[in-house]
Order: sequence, then structure tokens, then C-alpha cells
Amino acid sequence: MSNQLNGRRVAILATSGVERVELEQPRDAVTGAGASTTLVTIDELDVELWDDDTEIAGTARADGLVGDVSADDFDALLLPGGVRNPDQLRQDDDAVGFVRAFFASGKPVAAICHGPWLLAEAGVLDGRTVTSYPSLRTDLQNAGATWVDEEVVVDEGLVTSRNPGDLDAFCAKTVEEIAEGKHAGQTA
Amino acid sequence: MSNQLNGRRVAILATSGVERVELEQPRDAVTGAGASTTLVTIDELDVELWDDDTEIAGTARADGLVGDVSADDFDALLLPGGVRNPDQLRQDDDAVGFVRAFFASGKPVAAICHGPWLLAEAGVLDGRTVTSYPSLRTDLQNAGATWVDEEVVVDEGLVTSRNPGDLDAFCAKTVEEIAEGKHAGQTA
Repeated sequence: MSNQLNGRRVAILATSGVERVELEQPRDAVTGAGASTTLVTIDELDVELWDDDTEIAGTARADGLVGDVSADDFDALLLPGGVRNPDQLRQDDDAVGFVRAFFASGKPVAAICHGPWLLAEAGVLDGRTVTSYPSLRTDLQNAGATWVDEEVVVDEGLVTSRNPGDLDAFCAKTVEEIAEGKHAGQTA
Repeated sequence: MSNQLNGRRVAILATSGVERVELEQPRDAVTGAGASTTLVTIDELDVELWDDDTEIAGTARADGLVGDVSADDFDALLLPGGVRNPDQLRQDDDAVGFVRAFFASGKPVAAICHGPWLLAEAGVLDGRTVTSYPSLRTDLQNAGATWVDEEVVVDEGLVTSRNPGDLDAFCAKTVEEIAEGKHAGQTA
């Protein structure tokens, strides 16, 4: 338990279908470093957690709806995966606008697995270097990104990883980038 | 039962996670019109059918692996949806090459819901007009397509629809396009 993120407020955006471990492990990593987290969602506050996109593995109660909060109230954003999760979130204007606002203000954003689909939807990938679950590679490249096959990629406050096997590296870099704070270069 | 597709061989490409009704209803429509169908897949011949991306609803036994067949053996291709289905297929080089070969030879292709992700992966959407499940809109536009919100869109032998609610219109146009046969304009 360190205190390098004391006072930092981290938003987690997710809906039903989210990959359980990709929500829980980064959440525990940032709270373990002293941050507070707020889970925001769309439609229903009860968020179904899934394992491997094939098995329901519990429920998390969200703290609120994304349409009722502002990126101004947070210092960083976490986007877990699970194939159905961003597939639903990207259809919601409030969710997409929330993601875009973190980029507009240069605040750290960490996205893993299928989470980066939200970055394509928000139109914030032009010129950025990222990774993701391999199925998204073409979509992210078509959205203007350079896609690389590495366990974690950091590009001016944007942290991305491929899958749950990368979580240790993803969490370490996420804590590091949130500790650094805003990135001037991240104003796409 | 008509006979307008007598002698036509239709490939259906799907893997576990496929939306059950989007596999069954188009299959029954083309066989009802006299065609034969062959279900091809990747990895495992037992394909899990799902309802609404949330509930397993049975299994279909595939006739073979996509790597063991050729587009030359078929007159048309059906691509059902289900979010996990194309998400897995698009990572398989044989599956993507199979899709691309139907476009290279101008044979009819019908894709519904999340199925059109395979068209983005195959790089065959530049200049085409399509629809899909709304979550794919940005990915298909970024792949060069014009995206419209209609129950069925036909563009030179390429038939696309949005969701299971569009299946009646999708199946009717699919039968019609397969009956017409190769489209000279479809050589992307």
C-alpha cells in the first residue's frame, strides 16, 4: 500500500459484460496506491461481471450513470474490456463524450482488451500508438492509430494492454501515469 | 418452397457465440428456396449458438473447417452476427481470406448485425454502402463504407442488415441476390 495516488479520483466506465478481472485488478491497484474510484455506467446501475466473455461471474453496483457526472470531477479514466461492454458503451453519446473529455483535458486514460473500441468511437486515436485485444487491431488502425503487439503501451498518458494476462504490467503503468497527472501533449 | 436457388451452394461462416436466429433463419430461407448450405468454422466443429449474446441456446455441428474449403466451391456466403462470433473469426487468416475471395470473384455476400466486422477485416468496404448493428458504424465508416440506418441494404450483391428484427427483409434480399448470381461490379 503506497500513497502516491492520494487524493486522486479515478473514474471506471463499464456496463454489463465487462471482464471481471479487468475491472477489479486495476481498481484495486489504484485504490491500493491511495486513489478513490467511482464506477459509472449506462442504463442500469447493476453491472454484470463476466469471465472470458462466456460466463457470468457476479454483479457490481455502479456509483452512478455517466450522464450524471463530468470528467471535470476526475483525474483519470479506466476502461476495462469484455467484448459486450464497449460494444454497448460506444452506442451511448454520454459515454463517448465522457471518454473524449479526458483526452481534451490531457488526463490519463487506461484501456485494456476490448476497451480501446471506445477510443475509436471517441475519435481520439489519430497519431497515437496503442495495443488492444488483437481483434480490434484493424479498427484501431483505421481510426488512425499505430497498433503494436506489446503487453503494455504508454503514449503521453494513454495506457493500453492486450488481455488479462497483461494486467500486472497494465496496472503498474496505469498507477505511474496517474501519478504523473495531466499530459500537455494529450490534447487530441 | 420455391426452387429459384436450385443447385446453388451457400457457405455459412460462424464460430461459437453466433446469434442462433441469425444463423438458422437465413439458412432455412436459402434451403427453402432450393440451395444447399455448408457451415464452416474455425478450431472446433461444435459451434455454440447464443441468444442475445447472453445465453447459450444450443450447438450446431459444422460441416468443416474454413481452412479446408475454398470459395470456389460455393456460390454465395452468409455471415451471421453475435458479438463474439466475428470477434473471433476476424483473428483467423483462413476465415478472412475466405471472405475476401467471395468479393474478388463477385459472388453474393450477406452479413447481418455484428457480421459486417468481417468485411472491415477483409478490407472490402471501400466505397460500399452498408448497414450493421449500430456499434459497428464507426468501424465500418473508418474502413471506407457509407453507413445507413435501414433494415436491409443491397449494394452490388452485398446484402447487410442491422439486427434480428430485420431478418425477414434480410432473408428476402439474400435469396434475391443469390438468385441473380455474380455481380460484375463487385470486384473490390
